[in-house]
Amino acid sequence: MTAFADLMAFQRETEALAQIAGRLGWDQETVMPAGAAHQRGEEMGAIEGVLHARRTDPRVGDWLGTAEAPDAAGQRALDLIARAYRRNACIPARLAAETARVTSVAQGIWAEARGKDDVAHFLPTLEHVVALRREAGQALAAGGFGGGDVYDALLDDYEPGATGAGIAAVFGRMRPRLVALRAALLGARHAPVPLAHRFGKDGQMALARDLAGAFGYDWSRGRLDLAVHPFSSGSGNDVRITTRVSESDPFNCFYSTVHEVGHATYEQGIDQAYLLTPLGAGVSMGVHESQSRIYENQLGRSRAFTGWLFGRMRETFGDFGVADAEAFYGTVNRVQPGYIRTEADEVHYNLHIMMRFDLERQLMSGALAVADLEEAWNSRFAADFGVAVDRPAHGMLQDVHWSVGLFGYFPTYALGNVYAGCLHKALRAAVPDLDAALARGDAAPATGWLNDCLQRHGGLYAPAEVVERACGFAPDEGPLLDYLETKFRAIYRL
Amino acid sequence: MTAFADLMAFQRETEALAQIAGRLGWDQETVMPAGAAHQRGEEMGAIEGVLHARRTDPRVGDWLGTAEAPDAAGQRALDLIARAYRRNACIPARLAAETARVTSVAQGIWAEARGKDDVAHFLPTLEHVVALRREAGQALAAGGFGGGDVYDALLDDYEPGATGAGIAAVFGRMRPRLVALRAALLGARHAPVPLAHRFGKDGQMALARDLAGAFGYDWSRGRLDLAVHPFSSGSGNDVRITTRVSESDPFNCFYSTVHEVGHATYEQGIDQAYLLTPLGAGVSMGVHESQSRIYENQLGRSRAFTGWLFGRMRETFGDFGVADAEAFYGTVNRVQPGYIRTEADEVHYNLHIMMRFDLERQLMSGALAVADLEEAWNSRFAADFGVAVDRPAHGMLQDVHWSVGLFGYFPTYALGNVYAGCLHKALRAAVPDLDAALARGDAAPATGWLNDCLQRHGGLYAPAEVVERACGFAPDEGPLLDYLETKFRAIYRL
Repeated sequence: MTAFADLMAFQRETEALAQIAGRLGWDQETVMPAGAAHQRGEEMGAIEGVLHARRTDPRVGDWLGTAEAPDAAGQRALDLIARAYRRNACIPARLAAETARVTSVAQGIWAEARGKDDVAHFLPTLEHVVALRREAGQALAAGGFGGGDVYDALLDDYEPGATGAGIAAVFGRMRPRLVALRAALLGARHAPVPLAHRFGKDGQMALARDLAGAFGYDWSRGRLDLAVHPFSSGSGNDVRITTRVSESDPFNCFYSTVHEVGHATYEQGIDQAYLLTPLGAGVSMGVHESQSRIYENQLGRSRAFTGWLFGRMRETFGDFGVADAEAFYGTVNRVQPGYIRTEADEVHYNLHIMMRFDLERQLMSGALAVADLEEAWNSRFAADFGVAVDRPAHGMLQDVHWSVGLFGYFPTYALGNVYAGCLHKALRAAVPDLDAALARGDAAPATGWLNDCLQRHGGLYAPAEVVERACGFAPDEGPLLDYLETKFRAIYRL
Repeated sequence: MTAFADLMAFQRETEALAQIAGRLGWDQETVMPAGAAHQRGEEMGAIEGVLHARRTDPRVGDWLGTAEAPDAAGQRALDLIARAYRRNACIPARLAAETARVTSVAQGIWAEARGKDDVAHFLPTLEHVVALRREAGQALAAGGFGGGDVYDALLDDYEPGATGAGIAAVFGRMRPRLVALRAALLGARHAPVPLAHRFGKDGQMALARDLAGAFGYDWSRGRLDLAVHPFSSGSGNDVRITTRVSESDPFNCFYSTVHEVGHATYEQGIDQAYLLTPLGAGVSMGVHESQSRIYENQLGRSRAFTGWLFGRMRETFGDFGVADAEAFYGTVNRVQPGYIRTEADEVHYNLHIMMRFDLERQLMSGALAVADLEEAWNSRFAADFGVAVDRPAHGMLQDVHWSVGLFGYFPTYALGNVYAGCLHKALRAAVPDLDAALARGDAAPATGWLNDCLQRHGGLYAPAEVVERACGFAPDEGPLLDYLETKFRAIYRL
């Protein structure tokens, strides 16, 4: 028991320091003065150095060798610590330091390249990042992670237990139905009207706060600020969200807020007994995204909830040119091919992910050279979306992920959608009168069910396991596709 | 040279981590959700633990034993590191971590107690904090700091070289002249008119920003937020200030802002070569306060500058019942016994400090029990100010300092006033036409002189030494008392 208690006390401090590093990230994106950037780089380097030293501290290995867990939760905590320790041990210190240094610079170079639509400015850096991540993947694969596969070894960090082959199989079954649905919708005679109005910033922020409240965000343990790219940050009792405001597109503000509230209430809703332990955070990126997505889409973009939102928007902004709640439901759910993943509708979103997944797997296997990425991206986009990429900022430069070394992260977004589809099916069965509450702007019956069945467990169960426990069936893509076809064929009167 | 370079590289990371801890403090006072308080306590405990481990790392002792400085600045850095190393070595890690944890939580409890005027709610926590600080003082005294005196050992952390006996002697010389001046002013036939008007919050904040700019605050490396108790936070290129707003008392907002700008521009103005080194911060609390006080009082409350402020307030708020700039100068400098130290006029301010100094010395020596503090406070206040404390929030609950363990800190405020008096005398001799600039709302000739003569040196010289270098004479209380008597007797037409 002493080794277990010592390890847990050490781990608790590490988790607290990781929370601090996360909050520095929040600060940097929301309130930091611009002139502090260089100094902040040194500060982040210092705390990341402390965290790396703790995560590879030989005492952790010693404790793991003798610690005995008092219960199942304790055993799960030991397993998670052991897994992270073994992963970190595979990465040579030189590679970890070089990756930290190169990716921190790469993010700035990516932003510059994106700003001036200059792929060539980014390519040498991306080549360096890809080489470093392949090296890390190879080291992890050699250590037994990902069943010896480089891409799977990286993916395993974001979605433990998932494999590239498994995701490819899911995507293979999803693609034909999504492509058929997309074709039917784009060919339909009826189409919802787009918004054509200006929406004041103060009104948007006030309504965003109401939306966060409707979905159960606990303001006593969080706050809402503006950021260039919305995100949620922190675990336990300090979980902050951000959004952005565009006067022509209030849905960007509203649904970014609801999305981040999904992430944040997952963190806020974890059993307080797990605070600052390996169980005290969402279990995987895919499960996290299932929460943000079901809040945003299956609940937030439902006919019932958008009916309430329509009324609130009319109260806030007056007549904005949409006749009634039924028309508004169509406007919210308008399907249109677009360049940008983060602005994609529910039907197109997963096609963006499938494309990134195929491209990044090829980059990691070496089948695709970085020099050929732009051509591969553009030809694939034209084939999948029927539109030619007009500029690199709308193409391969649109997302920050690869610049900071996140290979294996993108598919977790689609996995989150798949999980959200399953959870929504189970939720509707468990709470048959949910629409009546949603129509009053009250998502509590849904968020209460999600908290009880999934969120409160934190890291206690493996990703697919916690979803299966919540749903009562093994998750697959069927419920998501059924939901999309039913919902969008009705909106488009097919 | 290798030991010196290694030590400086290690110290640089430690300084960066200390900046992070400071920024967490800023976060806690400005933007942190209330429900995060306990978790934040653990986070602060974790990073303070890391800092304590680094500051007592045996390698630092080894490096100090062999390091050779390349120049005088390097030698001063070595001396400061050695002094801090010897101090920290006196404090057991357990005590450092417990103090960090307890004081972080204590701050919230103090705020609650102050909010509901409930001394009993705060007493157990204050007892805990006092016990921890006495234990630290005893450990430091046993290690030879403060000449073996518990209070002096703590004071030495904020004002190296100062002693309780020395400060008591200065206060002993100041008190009769202050008491006589106070009696004369309160008995004068003429008295300035008080403000009797409401001043909108937005207008106050806009003017506070203008004031910060007038005193040279660099917005690209800082920001202004609201806090219950205004403070300045951070060093180098991220130095943030806070203020507060009362609709009936705009001077609270304005002069808190100018005060914090004094602290902040000291930090912002330090030679960039000293960034994240032991020389990269203000050298002591007393010298720090000399900057905030000369900005706030000798400059900000001067006849010339208040003339400009009167015009700006008329532009912002319209006619607010003060006839002209001359009357406004009196209103700004109105002398009145009041409960709150931070709102005290220049004449009463040091009497507040003398009282806290005596009480906290007794708390640290054990001569006064925490349980008896309220009675001791109230009877002393009645004796010194001729007014009975009406509620604890106006008495012993008014300041955050003791809740966060700052014993030995209060006298540095009065020392800052003494230094400010000396610096002001030298400044006026060096910049004879200063009033012409101040009358235009331009403090640059003064802040430029202060930066050149004092601020840019950071920690390069000892506190009394840097003030003497700037002034050209050894500092004492004479110039401050001369200034106060001349200024206030004129305002009160004596």
